[in-house]
Order: sequence, then structure tokens, then C-alpha cells
Amino acid sequence: MQYETKKRSILKAISWRTWATMTTAALVFIFTGQFALAVTIGLLEVFAKMALYFFHERLWQRISYGKKEIPAFVVWFTGLPASGKKELANRVHQQLKDDKLKVERLDSLDVRPLFPETGFSPEEVNRHVKRAGHLCAMLEKNGVIVVASFVSPYAKSRYFVRGVANNFVEIYMKTTVDACEKRDEKGHYAKAHSGEYQNFPGVDVAYDVPENPEIIIAVDDISTDEAVNQIVVYLRKRFLNN
Amino acid sequence: MQYETKKRSILKAISWRTWATMTTAALVFIFTGQFALAVTIGLLEVFAKMALYFFHERLWQRISYGKKEIPAFVVWFTGLPASGKKELANRVHQQLKDDKLKVERLDSLDVRPLFPETGFSPEEVNRHVKRAGHLCAMLEKNGVIVVASFVSPYAKSRYFVRGVANNFVEIYMKTTVDACEKRDEKGHYAKAHSGEYQNFPGVDVAYDVPENPEIIIAVDDISTDEAVNQIVVYLRKRFLNN
Repeated sequence: MQYETKKRSILKAISWRTWATMTTAALVFIFTGQFALAVTIGLLEVFAKMALYFFHERLWQRISYGKKEIPAFVVWFTGLPASGKKELANRVHQQLKDDKLKVERLDSLDVRPLFPETGFSPEEVNRHVKRAGHLCAMLEKNGVIVVASFVSPYAKSRYFVRGVANNFVEIYMKTTVDACEKRDEKGHYAKAHSGEYQNFPGVDVAYDVPENPEIIIAVDDISTDEAVNQIVVYLRKRFLNN
Repeated sequence: MQYETKKRSILKAISWRTWATMTTAALVFIFTGQFALAVTIGLLEVFAKMALYFFHERLWQRISYGKKEIPAFVVWFTGLPASGKKELANRVHQQLKDDKLKVERLDSLDVRPLFPETGFSPEEVNRHVKRAGHLCAMLEKNGVIVVASFVSPYAKSRYFVRGVANNFVEIYMKTTVDACEKRDEKGHYAKAHSGEYQNFPGVDVAYDVPENPEIIIAVDDISTDEAVNQIVVYLRKRFLNN
């Protein structure tokens, strides 16, 4: 909820008066040819109307007509581990913040500590993703844009999140398991291959490729800058009218 | 994030011009005694300044100076089961909504389905309350007021929630176990006494009375209307400047 301070109204009154009085004085001078009269009326107008403008602003501050909320939306990054979701999501989040939008960033690894008992079986992952979806929907309902990045390998829970969100933008990080393994600095894929990790999407469980994502990022073909741009252009066009 | 539509700017221009032109015409008439001149200058002014006013509004729409966010806060109701938290919280929530504030309502029973594995042992209740606190803090950080009602019997987790929130208002529903048992339509106390429920605050585990709550509601001495008023007056004074 925003409101406007009295100082803002005063500044607007002064800024408006500067332009408006010059117009009045010019009109009086053109019609009467009397410079002194133009200046006198202009000066009187300055004080009378500056006060009037101030009260006019305060009155309109109470009128909500024509004040709109920018619609919130949920941007959901899905893709194999090490497909570059987190970095790209961080960049998009920063861009939206720079545009002075209200935006929250949710990452699977940040949310997990809240649910310490959640494991990595398909059932638990689906539950984790659904909870995250509830959280996204609650934020979105309250006017907060959400940028979320979750491997979210199963179509079932992604479909659930799409259902609870109002404006849902699914971003699929399109790449291959081989390319992700090469990018994987933390050695997660190696641990999955050795059996240390179970239920690892792309290794011993399938990653369900999204059927109709709003945006597909060709991870291995374009730069991060290009990917950020692809997403931000889409969001501006669809939600931000610019 | 709010913005103002062009229609709002047009309406403001018309509303302003009505007052302002009458002032100009009156001044010209007073100084020259010429009615026709006053009307001519007034009419010309109408068109020139209405357009100017519109562009002035659009320019100020881009200036964020003096546009303030109403601060968000977390209102946390704590008290024995059947102490009346839920009803009172619903009423306060409705009041804030009526004031067109952005406000979310969290109740323990609404949040629990998200965490189906959470039981009622002190440890699990503390974890549940901490999670709810995280949720409150995330909403508050994004400008959303939260009205939360949780038995939250343990000082430890309530203290945690106070720590993660920015503006925290703890409301203690002051009453007795006996009075709650009489109010308890659902028979929860009976089930606790019979041993069907364990870890029931006020029966087989203690309810930690808050040490420094912002507001104490004398549940058995005042009406719900009075209690709502007590809380709303506090919130308006502390956060809403009215």
C-alpha cells in the first residue's frame, strides 16, 4: 500500500504553478497589452492557486480511482541439476528489483532448511515443490512477484504449482545431462553415478520435460545475458506494459 | 507496486481546471471589470492548461519522491486453545482489509495441511511455529501485513518469531483454563483430559505466559468488539498514523 506525503503535494503545487502562472500572465498580456496587470494577476494567482492545488492533491490522495496495482506473477525455473537455473534466476530477480518492483526470490536450497525432514524421494520432492507452490501463490496473491528456481523434475507437482498460481511463467532450461555434468562444479553428478545420491534427476530418475513451458531457454546455445533478455522482454510485454 | 492510469490524470486535470479557471476569471474580472475579457481568458486557459496539467501528472507519475509505503507488521495472537484467538484475529483481519490494506491471515489450522507430517510434541510444535514465523517475515518484508493466530504455547518459538519479524505485535489472550474449557465447543479439552490428546497446552503441558506482549486482551472481561477496538487503535497509532 502506497500513500503520498504532504511534501510531495507541496512540490507538485510549486512545479505546477510555475508553468500555469506563466501561461495566465501571457494570456492576460496578449489580450490587454498591459504588462503590470499581467504580473499582478499572475502574482495573486500564485498564492491563491498554490494553496488550492495542495488541497486538490490531498483530496485526490483519498480517491483510489485509476490507481492500479502492477499484477504479480510467478516465474518458475525448472531444469536438471547444474542446468544454470540459479544463476539465471538471480539475474532476472535483480533486473526486476532494479525496476523497483516488489519481488521475492525462492530457491530450493533456501526453502529446504525450513523443512529439515524432507528427503529426495519422488514423493518427498513432490511435497516440497507443492509447498513451495503454496508459498509462491500466497506471495503472488499479495502483489509480490516471485522468482523461483527448483529442479522440480516431476510434471505432477509442477502442474500443481501452475494451478495454484494466478499468472504462471514456467521457464524450462533446455540442455542435456552430458552438458550439465560438465558444468557441475560441485560433483553432484559423480556422487549420483557412484550411488551416493539416489533419486537424482537425469541419472537414476527421469526428469519430466515440460510440455508447454511459457519460455524455453536454449542453455547451451545462448549466453546468460541473452537468456536474461529473452525472459525480461517476455515479462515486460505480458505483465508490465512496457 | 502501484501506478496511476491516464484516465486518473485526465479526471484530475478536469477537476483541477474547474476550480482554477474560476479563480483566474474572477481575478481578471475584479481587476479589469470586463466580464467578456474574463470569460475569454478563462476559456483559453481551460484548453491550454488542461493539456499542460495532464503532462504534468504523467511526469510526476515517474517521480518517486514522497511516495511512501505503509509499513508492514506481524500481529501474532497467542493463547490457550479456545481462548478466542481465531475469532478475534478474523475480526482484526477484516477491519484492516476494510481499510484497503494489504493483509494476509494465517491460522495454525490452515498452515498445518502444508506440513502433514507435523505432530504435536513440543519439538514439532516449536518447528511448526518457527516455519510460520519465517512465512510471516517473508510476507512482511514484501509489504504485506500478517494477522497470525497460533496457540504457540512455548516461549522459545514465539521468541524466534519476534526475532525474524521486523515489526512484531504479540497479542496475549489472557484467560484461564477453566474459562477455555467452558468455551470449548469442539470438546478438545475433554479429549485431552481423557488422554486421547497428548501435549495439550493447559492440560498436560504448560502454556508459557508471554512476558512482554505488546497487547493483553482480558478475554473474560471485555466484549469482542472492545477487544477489536483495543487492537486496531494500537495498530493505527503505531503503524498507520491515524
